[in-house]
Amino acid sequence: MNLLYNHLSVNQDGHLAIGGMDTVDLAKQYGTPAYIMDEDAIRAMMRTYLDAAHTHFGADALPLYASKALCFTGIYRIAAEEGMGVDCVSGGELYTAKRAGFPAERIYFHGNNKTERDICDAMDMGVGTFVVDNTDELLSVESHAAARGITQRILLRITPGIDPHTHKAIVTGSVDSKFGSAIETGQAMEIVKLALAQPHIHLSGFHCHIGSQIFDTHPFSEAADIMVRFIASVKSECGMDVEELNLGGGLGVPYTEYDRPVDYAAAIKDMAAIVHGYCDTHGVKMPKVILEPGRSLVAAAGITLYTVGSVKEIPGFRTYVSVDGGMPDNPRYALYQSTYTALIANRPDAPRNCRVTVAGRCCESGDLIGEDMPLQEARRGDILAVLTTGAYNYAMASHYNRLPNPPVILVKDGAAKVAVKRESYEDLVRNDIL
Amino acid sequence: MNLLYNHLSVNQDGHLAIGGMDTVDLAKQYGTPAYIMDEDAIRAMMRTYLDAAHTHFGADALPLYASKALCFTGIYRIAAEEGMGVDCVSGGELYTAKRAGFPAERIYFHGNNKTERDICDAMDMGVGTFVVDNTDELLSVESHAAARGITQRILLRITPGIDPHTHKAIVTGSVDSKFGSAIETGQAMEIVKLALAQPHIHLSGFHCHIGSQIFDTHPFSEAADIMVRFIASVKSECGMDVEELNLGGGLGVPYTEYDRPVDYAAAIKDMAAIVHGYCDTHGVKMPKVILEPGRSLVAAAGITLYTVGSVKEIPGFRTYVSVDGGMPDNPRYALYQSTYTALIANRPDAPRNCRVTVAGRCCESGDLIGEDMPLQEARRGDILAVLTTGAYNYAMASHYNRLPNPPVILVKDGAAKVAVKRESYEDLVRNDIL
Repeated sequence: MNLLYNHLSVNQDGHLAIGGMDTVDLAKQYGTPAYIMDEDAIRAMMRTYLDAAHTHFGADALPLYASKALCFTGIYRIAAEEGMGVDCVSGGELYTAKRAGFPAERIYFHGNNKTERDICDAMDMGVGTFVVDNTDELLSVESHAAARGITQRILLRITPGIDPHTHKAIVTGSVDSKFGSAIETGQAMEIVKLALAQPHIHLSGFHCHIGSQIFDTHPFSEAADIMVRFIASVKSECGMDVEELNLGGGLGVPYTEYDRPVDYAAAIKDMAAIVHGYCDTHGVKMPKVILEPGRSLVAAAGITLYTVGSVKEIPGFRTYVSVDGGMPDNPRYALYQSTYTALIANRPDAPRNCRVTVAGRCCESGDLIGEDMPLQEARRGDILAVLTTGAYNYAMASHYNRLPNPPVILVKDGAAKVAVKRESYEDLVRNDIL
Repeated sequence: MNLLYNHLSVNQDGHLAIGGMDTVDLAKQYGTPAYIMDEDAIRAMMRTYLDAAHTHFGADALPLYASKALCFTGIYRIAAEEGMGVDCVSGGELYTAKRAGFPAERIYFHGNNKTERDICDAMDMGVGTFVVDNTDELLSVESHAAARGITQRILLRITPGIDPHTHKAIVTGSVDSKFGSAIETGQAMEIVKLALAQPHIHLSGFHCHIGSQIFDTHPFSEAADIMVRFIASVKSECGMDVEELNLGGGLGVPYTEYDRPVDYAAAIKDMAAIVHGYCDTHGVKMPKVILEPGRSLVAAAGITLYTVGSVKEIPGFRTYVSVDGGMPDNPRYALYQSTYTALIANRPDAPRNCRVTVAGRCCESGDLIGEDMPLQEARRGDILAVLTTGAYNYAMASHYNRLPNPPVILVKDGAAKVAVKRESYEDLVRNDIL
C-alpha cells in the first residue's frame, strides 16, 4: 500500500516500520495508544526549510518552528540543535522552551490575547520578539517595557485579507479575523503609527499568516504582494524602513494518497522569487524574512498506534472498528472532519478491501478517527496505525472520558526513547483537592 | 437580564453572584479562567431525579450520575452522599470513583470499547454492573469472570433505532451507531442468547441511550415502547425475565433564554407513566428502572469566569472580545457550534446592547466561545462569565496551545473551596523525559 512517506516501510516480518523500527514491537513495548515520531524525519524537514530559506531568501532568513503544532520539552531541543527559531503562543509554551534551554532571542511570542502575566514572563525570559496583535496589547507591552527600562523588539500582526481556500477554522488572514489589524480598514496603518510613537518599543516589521494546510502558493503570493505594498506605504507615510517580514506558515501535508505531496524547497524558492519581485516592483529593500512552519515540520513524522477492540458490522449500514483511543488523543475528525490514512500495522500488505468507520472508545458518537476509510480486515487485538498524526494530535489531547494522554515516543538511529511518559491514573487526579 | 437559573443573581454591588458569592471576588481570589460550580445546585438536581424516580418508577429505581459530564474526585463523593449510582466509561473514571470511596456495587461500567485492563480493573474493584456493548466484550467479560470464579452481573446495550433530533455527534441510539446491538438487524437478540449461554455472566437486563440535549419526551416514549416490546420478545423467545431496564439519560438544559426550561420531575413522571403503560400493554412485569442523567445534573450549576483581554471592532464585520481561555477549556463551540449565554460579571445589569464574537486566546480562528452573542460593552480587564458550563467543559479540557487547565471551585453555604487546583506550568511538563 501507499505509505505516504519514506520513513515508513514494511519490514521483513511484514509489519509496518517507522524509522526502521517495528511498530508491532513498539506497541508491545510502550502499550497503546501511543504517538510514535521519527526524529530524523523532523530534523530533515527542519533542514529543508533552513537550507531553502537561506538559499533563496538570504543568510539572515529564519524559519521558526510553530510549536503549537507539537509541544514538549524535547522538540525545542531539536529545534535549537538544528538552528531554527521558534514561535510560542502562551506562557506554557514559553515555559517549556525555557526548560529546554531554547535561546530566548530566537523566540517569537504570538497570540491574539497575551495576558499581563504572559507579557511579564516573556520579558523576564528575554524573549527576542513579541508579535503584537492589537492596540491593548501594544500599550501593555510598552508599559511593561518602560517599567523595566528596556526597549522591546516587536512585529505587528497584520491581516492581509486573503482567503487561502482551507478549512474555515484555520483561515487566519481574512479581514474578519480575531487576529491582527487589517490593512483594508485602515487599522493596520493606525497601529503602526501608534507603535512608532512608543518610546520603549522597537517596531522591526510585520507578521502575517493566512491559514494552514494550504497546498497552493497562489494565496502566499497574493499575501506577499499586499504585504510589500504595505511596507512601501509605511515607508512613504511614516518614513519607516521595515527590517523584517514574517510570512507565517501554512504549507500543507498529505494525509491521504489523494492529497498532493508538497515540494517544500520548491515552494520556498517560488515564494522568494515572488517576494524579491514585489520588492523590486514597489521599490522596497528586501527585508529579513521569517517563516513559521508548524504542521509541515512534524505531522508526517508521527503516527499513532492503537489496539483494535471490537469490530462491529451493521448490515446495510457500515462496519465500526473501535480502537483504544479516539477524540481525546486526536480530535481533528470531530473538529474539522479531517481525513487520515489508517492501516493494520501487523499486516500492512494485506489488501485494504474493507471500508470502515474507525471509532474511538469515548461515549460520544462523534468520537471517530474517520469514516469510509479503506482498511485491511480488522480483528480484536490488531494494531491499527493512523498516519500523519505528528501535528495537532498530542498538542490538542484532552482527558475526555478521563482517558490519560498517550506517551510520545521518539525513534532515531534504530532506537526508541520516551520523550513524554504515558499519563497514569494518578496523574489525572493529582490536582483533585476534594 | 435573564440569568437562566435561580442560583445566579445580581448582588448589592451590582456584580453577578453564584450561590450568593460575588463572581468578581471569586475571579480575584482564584484567578481566571476558572470554573465555578454551585454545589447546592448539583445536589438539588440529584434530589429532583432521586425523588421523581422513586415516586414514579418505584423505590428500587436508581438514577446514575453519568460522570463523563464532569469528572473529579469530589463529584463522586457528592453523588454517594445523595444516594445516586454512577455511570463510568473508563478506567480513569473508575479510578477516580474508587479514590472517592464510591460504593462499587452502585457503579455501572459503560463504553463501546473496554480494554482488557479496564475489564480486569473493574472486576478487581467489584463493579456492580457492566453495560456490555458487543460480542467481543461479552466473551472477554465471561473469560475474566471465569478466571476469577465469579459471576458478573451485566446489562446489554441495545440500540433501539431512534432519532432524537439533536446534534449528530450526540445521537447515540440509531441503528447506525458504534454503540450496542440493534434490535432491527436481529443482532440484539443474538447477543442476548449468547449472554444467556455464558456460565459466568448474569444478564439482568438492557440499556439503551438515545442521545443527549433532548427537550422532547417523545423520543424517550418511542424508545421505551421499543425496549418493552424487546423485553416481551426476549421473554417469549428465551424465557428470560428481565429484571432491569436502563433508559439512559439525555434530558437537555437551557444554554440561552431561547432554550425551553425542562421540568425534570414532570418529565420523569411522564416517562414512568409511559413505561408502565407499555408494560401493561405488552404483558411485561415492570422492571427496575435506571436513569442516567449527566449534563442535566451539573451543566447549569457551573459558570466559567474569564478576563477580557482585547476588544477589537472590525468596521463592517464584527467585534471580537478576546478572553484568557477558549477552546482548551470549552471546546463545545468548536465541536458542535453550541450556544451559550455570556455577560460582563462586573456589570451584569448594564444593557447587553452589543453583538459580539467571544474569542479564545488560541492561535486558531475556530477558537471561539460563540458568535453573534448579545453582551454588555466590554473593556480590557472586565470579568466575562459564560453560563451553563458545568458539563462537558472541564471534562473535555485540553492543553491546546499549552494552556493549563483552570481550577474547579465549589461554592456552598457562602464559602468557596478548591475542588481541583489550577494546573501549573510545571504540571504541563511533569511527564517530559526528553
